[in-house]
Amino acid sequence: MNEQTLIFSNNFSQELAETIQRANPASVFILTDKNTSQLVLPRLLSDCPELKKAIEITIPAGDEAKNLDSLAAIWASLVDGGATRKSLLINVGGGVVTDIGGFAAATFKRGIRFINIPTTLLAAVDAAVGGKTGINFHGLKNEIGAFRNAEAVIISTRFFDTLTAEELLSGFAEMIKHSLLSGPTAFKKIMGFDITSPNLDLLLPLVEESVRVKEAIVKADPTERGLRKALNLGHTPAHAFESLAFSKDASVPHGFAVAWGLVIDLILSRQRLGFPSTALYSVVDFVKSHYGTPAISCDDYPAIIDFMKHDKKNVVPGRISFTLLKEPGAVELGETVMPDEIPVILDIFRDLIQ
Amino acid sequence: MNEQTLIFSNNFSQELAETIQRANPASVFILTDKNTSQLVLPRLLSDCPELKKAIEITIPAGDEAKNLDSLAAIWASLVDGGATRKSLLINVGGGVVTDIGGFAAATFKRGIRFINIPTTLLAAVDAAVGGKTGINFHGLKNEIGAFRNAEAVIISTRFFDTLTAEELLSGFAEMIKHSLLSGPTAFKKIMGFDITSPNLDLLLPLVEESVRVKEAIVKADPTERGLRKALNLGHTPAHAFESLAFSKDASVPHGFAVAWGLVIDLILSRQRLGFPSTALYSVVDFVKSHYGTPAISCDDYPAIIDFMKHDKKNVVPGRISFTLLKEPGAVELGETVMPDEIPVILDIFRDLIQ
Repeated sequence: MNEQTLIFSNNFSQELAETIQRANPASVFILTDKNTSQLVLPRLLSDCPELKKAIEITIPAGDEAKNLDSLAAIWASLVDGGATRKSLLINVGGGVVTDIGGFAAATFKRGIRFINIPTTLLAAVDAAVGGKTGINFHGLKNEIGAFRNAEAVIISTRFFDTLTAEELLSGFAEMIKHSLLSGPTAFKKIMGFDITSPNLDLLLPLVEESVRVKEAIVKADPTERGLRKALNLGHTPAHAFESLAFSKDASVPHGFAVAWGLVIDLILSRQRLGFPSTALYSVVDFVKSHYGTPAISCDDYPAIIDFMKHDKKNVVPGRISFTLLKEPGAVELGETVMPDEIPVILDIFRDLIQ
Repeated sequence: MNEQTLIFSNNFSQELAETIQRANPASVFILTDKNTSQLVLPRLLSDCPELKKAIEITIPAGDEAKNLDSLAAIWASLVDGGATRKSLLINVGGGVVTDIGGFAAATFKRGIRFINIPTTLLAAVDAAVGGKTGINFHGLKNEIGAFRNAEAVIISTRFFDTLTAEELLSGFAEMIKHSLLSGPTAFKKIMGFDITSPNLDLLLPLVEESVRVKEAIVKADPTERGLRKALNLGHTPAHAFESLAFSKDASVPHGFAVAWGLVIDLILSRQRLGFPSTALYSVVDFVKSHYGTPAISCDDYPAIIDFMKHDKKNVVPGRISFTLLKEPGAVELGETVMPDEIPVILDIFRDLIQ
């Protein structure tokens, strides 16, 4: 995959100006959603004269907008704005904007360059980095897409002052995951950070450490043939929780589902691989006090197990695939579990967290 | 770009069977258009038991079908048929089918494997090989797409027995182009072949030689940053002829436009770079007797020049880019011409060919 420059800085406008100058584009387009168009774009435009002639493209906010209609609208705006192979698309927003904008750029004239400016913590530590682009299709998440790195990702915590507590927590769950994949030092540092009233300047180096964990894994395995599956820690149960909520016409923030999913994967890790109980309980306490507990009862078990059975990450017929840990920093890929082992795990999860 | 295996064989079903076995796919899908679904698919199914469980996807025939609706229909069929990341899509048809099928595969779940089986001479020597996939969008050809190689391209001249004389000639123009890029030996061999009543067994090694020329160029420059522009020989005027016809609600076969475009590029090559007149006149005679002459008069010059000025291959503002030749095998990239030099060239072209 093409190289990706990661820039971590709260001196934002200068970094953006330099990045645009380096790219020397024929023309510049900025993709926003309705929220970032109002909350973030004015700041960028006033601070960065390089954006004066940029053409704005705006899509609706929310995951429902990550669809084929929005994609075609972005392509059409690029055509109408006279974009050439040397143009540059700047994606300003959360994961929806960086995912769909990245895919639009990856496929316009068979690929133009793009820059990601994540405006949520979740996008900064997850979606904006690593080259996964795409849209939802026929009710399936990220069913259509491409692997394509942004030319650059510019990460600043300054934008996070407009985020709600829920949005901050949602991103922080992925940071907990990265720290668990990294090792005991990173893990302790993350557990000690106060995300409920965060100091955004202190958060920036933590975000950088977190993103570097993901970057190293993605570089080793860009198209998810092996090692990249480590990033699925917590995500098999997380997707089941999200699908369950969706089936009840409700929704849970992705990061909350990941936080609960991490607890389940660590319970499994403790049982199967002897993951240390002190680390398990520190995650349990943190998740319980910050993320609360999902609204599930035993009646939901069959549905949860069914969603897990249909997870696209499964590789062994009839078994459910998990990424587990022997200890913080020691990953075991491709662990599989029989569906009938899941109810006991869910019982333990509810005992611990409810 | 991913590696691409090229197979040239008239022992077709065995090659296909072996290719599928090597790929060891979770499931197989076959993309056809209305024509190849009737004319070619039955042969494949009866000869190749590996295709028994394959799921057929059919799109309408013709370039108008190379659009977003057909693409979405292919994606939907892959979803409905339960395609996984380990599935395989086999594209059976001309350039429309291999272009759109390749793009559908390149983007389904961020990329599944595909095989191209070109059923026209034009697709065999051009579209099916080299990793350019895509669709037309907002009236612009191949505006949306990706660079992605087929896992394998299986080329057999056996399917060409159903092609019309026009279709054979259309593909042969690209073979003339490749021979001009290759050198005097290849050029003479092509000029000596009787494409009007072709021996399909003798055609196969010629097709292989022709495709190998393209393959070598594409390997050196997969995403068209430099050398790949050599393949644009004849194509600046060709696209203008096609656009002109389209503006009159008419159409010319792509290869016919390329044949005429080659004559124009060789006239320019003679004037500017001393391209040998014997080679020029042998192309002129061949094109005149096989492809006839385009229906243009001086009244069309402004439109033709205008289309050339808007060619997306242009790089110098106000000038028109051409790929030219010093002699067969000696390419000069990035030659540019002022628009007001074009009328004289068109006059000479009409004198020679009308």
